[in-house]
Amino acid sequence: MSKGDRGRFFEDFEVGQVLEHAGPRTVTEADAVLHLALTGSRFALHAAAPLARAWGLPAPPLDDLLVFHLIFGMSVPDLSVNAVANLGYADGRFLAPVYPGDTLRARSTVIGRKATSSGRTGIVWVRTEGFKGDGTPVLTYVRWVLVAKRDPASPPPEPVVPELPASVAPDRLVVPTGLAPRAVDPAVTGSPWFFEDYEIGERIDHVDGMAVMESEHRLATRLYRNTARVHFNDHVERQGRLGSVIVYGGVVMSIARALSFNGLGNAWGLLAINAGTHANPCRPGDTIYAWSEVLDRADLAGRTDLGTLRLRLVASKNRQAADFPRKDESGAYRPEVLLDLDYWALVPRRAVAASVGAR
Amino acid sequence: MSKGDRGRFFEDFEVGQVLEHAGPRTVTEADAVLHLALTGSRFALHAAAPLARAWGLPAPPLDDLLVFHLIFGMSVPDLSVNAVANLGYADGRFLAPVYPGDTLRARSTVIGRKATSSGRTGIVWVRTEGFKGDGTPVLTYVRWVLVAKRDPASPPPEPVVPELPASVAPDRLVVPTGLAPRAVDPAVTGSPWFFEDYEIGERIDHVDGMAVMESEHRLATRLYRNTARVHFNDHVERQGRLGSVIVYGGVVMSIARALSFNGLGNAWGLLAINAGTHANPCRPGDTIYAWSEVLDRADLAGRTDLGTLRLRLVASKNRQAADFPRKDESGAYRPEVLLDLDYWALVPRRAVAASVGAR
Amino acid sequence: MSKGDRGRFFEDFEVGQVLEHAGPRTVTEADAVLHLALTGSRFALHAAAPLARAWGLPAPPLDDLLVFHLIFGMSVPDLSVNAVANLGYADGRFLAPVYPGDTLRARSTVIGRKATSSGRTGIVWVRTEGFKGDGTPVLTYVRWVLVAKRDPASPPPEPVVPELPASVAPDRLVVPTGLAPRAVDPAVTGSPWFFEDYEIGERIDHVDGMAVMESEHRLATRLYRNTARVHFNDHVERQGRLGSVIVYGGVVMSIARALSFNGLGNAWGLLAINAGTHANPCRPGDTIYAWSEVLDRADLAGRTDLGTLRLRLVASKNRQAADFPRKDESGAYRPEVLLDLDYWALVPRRAVAASVGAR
Repeated sequence: MSKGDRGRFFEDFEVGQVLEHAGPRTVTEADAVLHLALTGSRFALHAAAPLARAWGLPAPPLDDLLVFHLIFGMSVPDLSVNAVANLGYADGRFLAPVYPGDTLRARSTVIGRKATSSGRTGIVWVRTEGFKGDGTPVLTYVRWVLVAKRDPASPPPEPVVPELPASVAPDRLVVPTGLAPRAVDPAVTGSPWFFEDYEIGERIDHVDGMAVMESEHRLATRLYRNTARVHFNDHVERQGRLGSVIVYGGVVMSIARALSFNGLGNAWGLLAINAGTHANPCRPGDTIYAWSEVLDRADLAGRTDLGTLRLRLVASKNRQAADFPRKDESGAYRPEVLLDLDYWALVPRRAVAASVGAR
Repeated sequence: MSKGDRGRFFEDFEVGQVLEHAGPRTVTEADAVLHLALTGSRFALHAAAPLARAWGLPAPPLDDLLVFHLIFGMSVPDLSVNAVANLGYADGRFLAPVYPGDTLRARSTVIGRKATSSGRTGIVWVRTEGFKGDGTPVLTYVRWVLVAKRDPASPPPEPVVPELPASVAPDRLVVPTGLAPRAVDPAVTGSPWFFEDYEIGERIDHVDGMAVMESEHRLATRLYRNTARVHFNDHVERQGRLGSVIVYGGVVMSIARALSFNGLGNAWGLLAINAGTHANPCRPGDTIYAWSEVLDRADLAGRTDLGTLRLRLVASKNRQAADFPRKDESGAYRPEVLLDLDYWALVPRRAVAASVGAR
Repeated sequence: MSKGDRGRFFEDFEVGQVLEHAGPRTVTEADAVLHLALTGSRFALHAAAPLARAWGLPAPPLDDLLVFHLIFGMSVPDLSVNAVANLGYADGRFLAPVYPGDTLRARSTVIGRKATSSGRTGIVWVRTEGFKGDGTPVLTYVRWVLVAKRDPASPPPEPVVPELPASVAPDRLVVPTGLAPRAVDPAVTGSPWFFEDYEIGERIDHVDGMAVMESEHRLATRLYRNTARVHFNDHVERQGRLGSVIVYGGVVMSIARALSFNGLGNAWGLLAINAGTHANPCRPGDTIYAWSEVLDRADLAGRTDLGTLRLRLVASKNRQAADFPRKDESGAYRPEVLLDLDYWALVPRRAVAASVGAR
């Protein structure tokens, strides 16, 4: 038998199964710089050491989505090498900031599975958890994925579908350990808007468009150690349904999040991922636009310096976001929509804004 | 009102205005390595720690043009998101070497503005200054840029055009603090030529050609945090005048400078940028060639180990530089010419060459 | 005379000539991360600091092929700027692990030369050696290269052809200093297979295909400071025989080696390169597949924890490797074959596998 692994199929997953993912990875400043070069992110906290230290952190933490992609990537060889599609995310929480020098590892537990009516595929639900080398949890989230069956004739298992919250309750959100911003200066962070400046229902066009090219998405996806075949094998994918490889949805997330700086420049980090849909595939060469909607606002227990906004981040391809494209009249995603991400963002309150004299 | 920022237009600039640029950035070894991977630069001082230390520096300093791009990039959201073109540079001086771990920030002051005859645009002159976190100035330069008007009907302001030196006088050049080269070995630096070997009027064909591809210019430009739309939005720019995004002129500068190693391998650093013109746009896929002319030579006060060459660096696209293309009979730049850069370079004198026995 | 160097031609090489290569380079974590982003390598030892330390090393060593490319790249300006083709490698040995912070330099000695029957080219054999700043040798190998003659009419020199071993004898292999693996856990390294699990003659299809795009091969090749013109000058190469630049053969090596993780995930490092052939050119856009054959197995003197496998690694383009493509009936390489590499790999024995209880 060849030792080359072809990955798990639907039949290989059982509820309760625990998969320790291989490939622990020590993250470095270089990961942060490459993420910046690949996405154009401009959030100040992640790039300026004196700012991070002034705000109580030992160093600039890695971008939260970079952490998400690294943990996600570790899970791919065990979960989704044969995935047809990532169907969704739920109940995701960021539990501790990650710094250069930390070593990440990950584990997933199968929490549900259900055959689809086509007979050729099934849905698998997993909870994936990321840890530091010393066991500190850094991230937990549920995702579900459409996986090919090895044998279309294999009988469908008893369906197990987990119950998942529509969103993470604010009292379950974890503020990064140590973070205590003060004298937050719009001239330094690049945004004049604080927590109090956002209203529920408000929509923000992030204006700019950024194309994602062939080499960029591959560099990013390899940086995250995501080995799913649809992102890399041109020889096969050019002959496939889309006529090209697909850009990993996490790359779309990160570019949309980077674009959202223009209007959300003080939305420093993600506290939770409530839900996420990759509505349509992104191909190399597509230009990504983004807009956001404020879905909710919440206090953070015991914090007068920080609040949290529940945001919907929508990315579209080759279509500007000025009129906030999302779904059509039938309730289906418009074909230009790539991503619909629902998350809690950490935002400073006006109480910690720099006084003009203090600059 | 949407919070998404569309950038400043010509009407938004007033002489005397001071713009503190957001987004301080702690630079790292990874920035240096990525710059190398993006440009192919081979100058030894920037890549070999023992060499830098033997020559009096604490570590390899960042490439001067990388520092220029990082400071320039910080200024883009405030100055040139809506720029039609970078028209020129003048009176640029590098004031201190930058090392991994330093945090850079930047500020610009508007020093001139003038409406153009078309009525749709205007020229804005700014002096941009870069600093370390502790306030040490690292770079100062003037650039002028063609900016779109918000309203073509807005009345032209009183023109203010700054007086600018044709070149930086040698007595205003600043040698990097601590630099004291000794035993400079051509077998280590890669060039047998010292200060005394260059003559005024001498022209050097740098021989090699290097193409710049779609992903490369984007990675570089995002690394510098330059967000100007013409570099990233394929969806819009493919329908525009050029049929493609434009490669950021700084990428052309850095590639031309990297090519110039072949003939100027001991021209370690830039002390000043006297003038610079982006003569024609560079598109992804163009192959860049370069040549240099020695415009002047000067002593550096109190230094017997180092001299400075005033160099013209010309980059052309898809045309070899063996016959030194620049302007046609009418005095206009040839269509293949991308860049005409006038700078002072730091070059060791033969006095510090390694003796053969000392190797 | 222009100072721009056009590189050495066949006539410029003499047996016994020693070429000290310019451009020492201090390697960093960023080089390791970029190599990972460019190749998708997943070997755990090179990416996880706690694992490296638990196994006796001070830090994750650089990937051996990255070290090979960096040393090779230093030799290009002196040896192969005008190379027509890399013809082969022999007697290559990795002598010490390289860590971030080490400074590499390289030297080559001409050990053979022979004009070809065409009269337009000649073959040059060199032994290239890489060192750390303190003189510690890290790598030595022989390569031979087809070089253009400056003048087709120049008389052929007396041929000198070095004798080279078909493979490195196992007793000449050097285990990385300090390496003492223990509790090797397949759930961490990503592979269940140990030294004892491989049999001579066994073939492994590495399953996955990875395309290499325009920007990726250039970024990699510049990272290695390889300046050979065929990799970068689209303007010239598009008009050439292949209609495009050629991907540096080392990029193919590294991608094939990264793909080989799937089946050889515990084959941590290279101890020797016995032979290597770049059978056909790789163009940007080609998808690379790989397979391996176990050619031999050997003990390592005094080591009960580690063994070594002699492996043939074959890469093909745009053709899956499930049927192990290599040569046709006539003994010529099939046109889809890119690389045929013969090397000794370091593999842990079952004796150091983690017991289930110890995980």
